[in-house]
Amino acid sequence: MTDEQDSHAPGRAVLSLDIGGTKLAVGVVTADGEVHGLVVEPTRRWEGPDVVIPRLFELGHRAIAAAGLDRPVDAVGISCGGPLDSGTGVLISPPHLPGWLDVPLGSMTSDEFGVPAYLENDATAAALGEHRFGAARGVSTMIYLTISTGVGGGAVIDGQLHRGAAGNGGELGHLMVRPGGRPCTCGRRGCLEAYVSGTNIAERAVEGLRAGRVSPDGSPSSLAAIEQPTAADVAAAALAGDGYARAIWTETTDVLGQALTDLVNVFEPELVVLGGGVTRSGAMLLEPVAEAVARDAMPPAAKAARVVLAGLGDVVCVVGAGVVALDAQEGEHA
Amino acid sequence: MTDEQDSHAPGRAVLSLDIGGTKLAVGVVTADGEVHGLVVEPTRRWEGPDVVIPRLFELGHRAIAAAGLDRPVDAVGISCGGPLDSGTGVLISPPHLPGWLDVPLGSMTSDEFGVPAYLENDATAAALGEHRFGAARGVSTMIYLTISTGVGGGAVIDGQLHRGAAGNGGELGHLMVRPGGRPCTCGRRGCLEAYVSGTNIAERAVEGLRAGRVSPDGSPSSLAAIEQPTAADVAAAALAGDGYARAIWTETTDVLGQALTDLVNVFEPELVVLGGGVTRSGAMLLEPVAEAVARDAMPPAAKAARVVLAGLGDVVCVVGAGVVALDAQEGEHA
Repeated sequence: MTDEQDSHAPGRAVLSLDIGGTKLAVGVVTADGEVHGLVVEPTRRWEGPDVVIPRLFELGHRAIAAAGLDRPVDAVGISCGGPLDSGTGVLISPPHLPGWLDVPLGSMTSDEFGVPAYLENDATAAALGEHRFGAARGVSTMIYLTISTGVGGGAVIDGQLHRGAAGNGGELGHLMVRPGGRPCTCGRRGCLEAYVSGTNIAERAVEGLRAGRVSPDGSPSSLAAIEQPTAADVAAAALAGDGYARAIWTETTDVLGQALTDLVNVFEPELVVLGGGVTRSGAMLLEPVAEAVARDAMPPAAKAARVVLAGLGDVVCVVGAGVVALDAQEGEHA
Repeated sequence: MTDEQDSHAPGRAVLSLDIGGTKLAVGVVTADGEVHGLVVEPTRRWEGPDVVIPRLFELGHRAIAAAGLDRPVDAVGISCGGPLDSGTGVLISPPHLPGWLDVPLGSMTSDEFGVPAYLENDATAAALGEHRFGAARGVSTMIYLTISTGVGGGAVIDGQLHRGAAGNGGELGHLMVRPGGRPCTCGRRGCLEAYVSGTNIAERAVEGLRAGRVSPDGSPSSLAAIEQPTAADVAAAALAGDGYARAIWTETTDVLGQALTDLVNVFEPELVVLGGGVTRSGAMLLEPVAEAVARDAMPPAAKAARVVLAGLGDVVCVVGAGVVALDAQEGEHA
């Protein structure tokens, strides 16, 4: 994804495993940030770690074969939602994988592939991927927010990945935006995630319909005809002019704009990068939240920050976990 | 303030000027973090920069004489509330100094003392002071919050002062804690500062009394007998058992605890240091907010973070601006 010749280790390649709540995405990542032999399959998380992890490893072997490497990979990078311990490689209790408790995924992966394995929080990995090979290349300080099944985030500060004292590197999805508001998966109320994740956009739409809410002009919403409307359905209906869907969408961008204003004030980044499934809605998400930041953040911070969409799209976590593993190997060999 | 022998430049000394909305504090800071020849006088900000700045410089000459230096200072560090431009040394429009617009304080100071001068946001300087010589010595990642006339903050991340793309290094006082709530000096509503600054604690108490609020048991508040109660009066009355004052205080610690939880989630620091006049209330401020963070922050972040009071007390900004100037000189000579 860059035309520049990579100066170190031509041919250095790592396997990258991205474990999402919905999809497993696996590929070989080379030092130029390119993904080779990408395979994507449903997670089927309800099958549990004893079934899903062997299947994940099988995908890994397929990706290595498909990438046409003439030698083993140098390492494996793993991207997964937290909480996890990146130091020990243990998945603690990720809410998007119910029942996956204290899984020693790092050592299991290392045993399977015979090389070191590095586990990283998915949003932290994505931040690193966007900084190295995506929308934030060359930027000194940036924050990344993934708006997907849940909401996560990561930050690069003065060119360095921010890991924090606990190693999770910042839980941006749990900023409190509406004290006493909607319940969140974290156990509190009123978190950012409880309003703007794909799951919660859909839930807010359904709850409003059940409560009898209609469009401001009194007409029924087109969403009422959909059995289980998704966030994408809400976005499509809002774009098509459905007044009820527009109100749900405006609440989404209001809350996200408020949270990004807080994050821009606190971090003073040059760039805010938004990724994850909900950002496929594009300009109708990006424009109002970028306007909110420009209008509401403290003037010097607002002037310094741009808000953009991720450059790596659906492979952002695959690239990010690849960068984690490549960097760790670089550290080993330095 | 340390027993260790400083390895570089024994005798290196800088003048430090701290410009508060209420007080001017000036002293000579040596490389061991000690303050010599400290002088503190009222700011009398209403006299304007043309009167106050010459008086500030006069205090500087007095402090140098009182410190008994046998040679000129190496540099001058200046601590002041923002917004300011630390690169050009210009005070832009600090709300605590009304009418001080675009004052080129850096160059004026440099001309006056014949050495380089470095202007820094007061809370940023204080964060650096606490990290080098105060409660956060040896800590890798910490945030500092000053709760005073206003609320400001700074952060040290992986041992480095966080400056941010705009150079202000994070506006922690303007986290939105109560959307649509009390008006803030920044022009928005519901910011942290609009609830927990000394000014706003006092204002909330007065507003409630005017609205006829009383203690939960129906008895009138002792604060009603004070013509212009301050935040210190509210704290004292709450400590003495005044039910109305306790309710005002509980709102203060609730809001501060919520904001600190957000900041701990976002930065994952090892330490949160609280300084500024309002923290003279001590345990009755510290204990409930530390409990809120331990209870409400994401478990790994909560486990990693301690909340403590500043170690440098009233001279935190004097020491901080001194460290800024010492570090800048170090950079020049490196």
